[in-house]
Amino acid sequence: MKIEPRTLKGFRDFLPKDARKRAYVLETLKRVFESYGFEPLETPALEYEDILAGKYGNEGDKLMYRFSDNGDRKVAMRYDQTVPLARVVAQYQNELTMPFKRYQIQNVWRAENTQKGRYREFLQVDADIVGTYSPLSDAEVISTVIKCLEVLGFKNFKINVNNRENFANIDPSAILTIDKLKKIGKEGVLKELQEKGLPTSSLDEVLNKKLNDKLKDILDVVNDERVAFDPALARGLDYYTGLIFEVEVDGYDVGSIAGGGRYDNLIGMFAGKEIPAVGFAFGFDRLMEAMEVLNLFPNDVYTTKVLVAFATSDFQEKALKIADELRAKKVNTEAYLEDVILEKQLKYADKKQIPFVVIADENKLILKDMEKRTQEELTLEEIIKKLQN
Amino acid sequence: MKIEPRTLKGFRDFLPKDARKRAYVLETLKRVFESYGFEPLETPALEYEDILAGKYGNEGDKLMYRFSDNGDRKVAMRYDQTVPLARVVAQYQNELTMPFKRYQIQNVWRAENTQKGRYREFLQVDADIVGTYSPLSDAEVISTVIKCLEVLGFKNFKINVNNRENFANIDPSAILTIDKLKKIGKEGVLKELQEKGLPTSSLDEVLNKKLNDKLKDILDVVNDERVAFDPALARGLDYYTGLIFEVEVDGYDVGSIAGGGRYDNLIGMFAGKEIPAVGFAFGFDRLMEAMEVLNLFPNDVYTTKVLVAFATSDFQEKALKIADELRAKKVNTEAYLEDVILEKQLKYADKKQIPFVVIADENKLILKDMEKRTQEELTLEEIIKKLQN
Repeated sequence: MKIEPRTLKGFRDFLPKDARKRAYVLETLKRVFESYGFEPLETPALEYEDILAGKYGNEGDKLMYRFSDNGDRKVAMRYDQTVPLARVVAQYQNELTMPFKRYQIQNVWRAENTQKGRYREFLQVDADIVGTYSPLSDAEVISTVIKCLEVLGFKNFKINVNNRENFANIDPSAILTIDKLKKIGKEGVLKELQEKGLPTSSLDEVLNKKLNDKLKDILDVVNDERVAFDPALARGLDYYTGLIFEVEVDGYDVGSIAGGGRYDNLIGMFAGKEIPAVGFAFGFDRLMEAMEVLNLFPNDVYTTKVLVAFATSDFQEKALKIADELRAKKVNTEAYLEDVILEKQLKYADKKQIPFVVIADENKLILKDMEKRTQEELTLEEIIKKLQN
Repeated sequence: MKIEPRTLKGFRDFLPKDARKRAYVLETLKRVFESYGFEPLETPALEYEDILAGKYGNEGDKLMYRFSDNGDRKVAMRYDQTVPLARVVAQYQNELTMPFKRYQIQNVWRAENTQKGRYREFLQVDADIVGTYSPLSDAEVISTVIKCLEVLGFKNFKINVNNRENFANIDPSAILTIDKLKKIGKEGVLKELQEKGLPTSSLDEVLNKKLNDKLKDILDVVNDERVAFDPALARGLDYYTGLIFEVEVDGYDVGSIAGGGRYDNLIGMFAGKEIPAVGFAFGFDRLMEAMEVLNLFPNDVYTTKVLVAFATSDFQEKALKIADELRAKKVNTEAYLEDVILEKQLKYADKKQIPFVVIADENKLILKDMEKRTQEELTLEEIIKKLQN
């Protein structure tokens, strides 16, 4: 009768300790997005298959979760947030005010090979500006990324930018090779081009490209020395038509933690007319990993600030009342709900990483700092003051 | 070549205007949950089919989205958040500290008949306390619901409570009929029982039940006159074992907007031993609808506070700088990014319901209140002060 509790390969549960950290980063990103006037958008997990199919190349079609629903409709699970955005813009053209600036934070699903450390369900964090060709919009997208990184605590990072049009005359297979320049070096690229039977001149052709006028305008507006022209940057996705960029973080070399660019043709597939767009996405798992590696999480990513415990059962009711008073003063407060000895209550606070414990005792209250391992007798008013800080 | 942009029946896009309102309610609920020490949990959209199948009765098995994945595993999409919680508690027994208090806010999928105004993808908002039989936990769950409703602005509501054990000896089909007492009245219930060939005595048997000791304890602790014993309340789900409750809101009679109860046997199906639990869920769509009907949304559910516009192109650069300064002062600020006439910029702010516009002009700044249709010339410092309020 017992069912073995288990999760599918590539799918994850996020227990409170991790869920709190994720929430901390997401709240920070939302705050930055909203500070620039990006507004939230949500789209469904399931779309008609023809909306998503064929938009992500062969690999995308292979990795997409697809099935027939109970009404025999062919459906597919969200694979990214850019194609659904394109559909939304086309579908609600008359309702949406252009330029349309939206952010979107939802899970996507890809049947990836999990042995490569990839997940099959993962969060994407996108922000895009739709409906304008203005270089100010390209610049704002880059500025938004920089602000997100700064607010999260990243210090040493680079934004590599390029113009996708520079690859217009280059063989797609050569682009993939040239994109590896940083990883395998100039000689590696030349060797791989030769092996593929492609002209080795492609590399120099690409490296000799200059900043075009629009890219110059964009970089002028952003005006940040961490943004640098990188003629070898290609980015995988086909749909880019102008600016492309990727974020490189010192001390985290697993890969880029964010990237984006301009895609002026994608929305037209749904809208029947060209609607320009520029935007970016954070790879949320990589972002979290980079923050972990660089130790950027504050110590106090907790949601519960204090546990109200009781010295003996006689004071549990008193503890419940104090908990209510703390909550009324906007202090996140857990009351211990079972009738157990104090030691067990303190252990509970420790395991749950609750930073403070108030102990209700006869005629007195004790405030324990669980991190510093100190305690003092205080009045409720003094406790409230301390905990509100 | 053009692909018709459209969404699946029962699935919804949430454009910014609605997404902002949803975010407002969710932030409020999260704040209340965290004020009681509930912590966030996330589980995957897809589970092994055997984890979910058979847990929700025949209807559940019929309405569940199921398919075989690329690896031919039988998988099912999240149908509620209680069964995944039960799986998580069983799977991480050694990591989790009991009592385990978690909230969870994720979409679930059910292939419902959409003609009944039902959706196939909808958000659930759950909070549960796992691992304790203490009536204090039942009481806290009810108190949390009350606090959520109060903070959202609900004034006249009732929490109907009952003890599911009171139905122990009643035919399941009779329970369904008795549960309709409020809708169809006593005579309606008696008639339906007769038609079903069931003893009409069941109704009186149920109505004559009294509060048991545990329910009395719970109500004593909650100590709120809006909580009332309702012996006819049954709730559909099979897994309840003690307290059950539903929220009734005056002025919104589509149905209960929240409900919950104690379920001490469910987790055991995965854990192999009994682990008690009590919790509740908000029906998020109904909650939103009730708030709309009762006019509980504040006027100012916006994310962008101000648009910085420019009188003529010459001052667009000045506008961009002012936007940056406002952002630095924590004012959510959109800069208008295209080069258009002022009138068009103002129209844009209006359509997007941005409450204020700053106009950068030669040697002066104008602040327009878009709602009151007033404007005044101010210094940047004065503008910042006004907008920070």
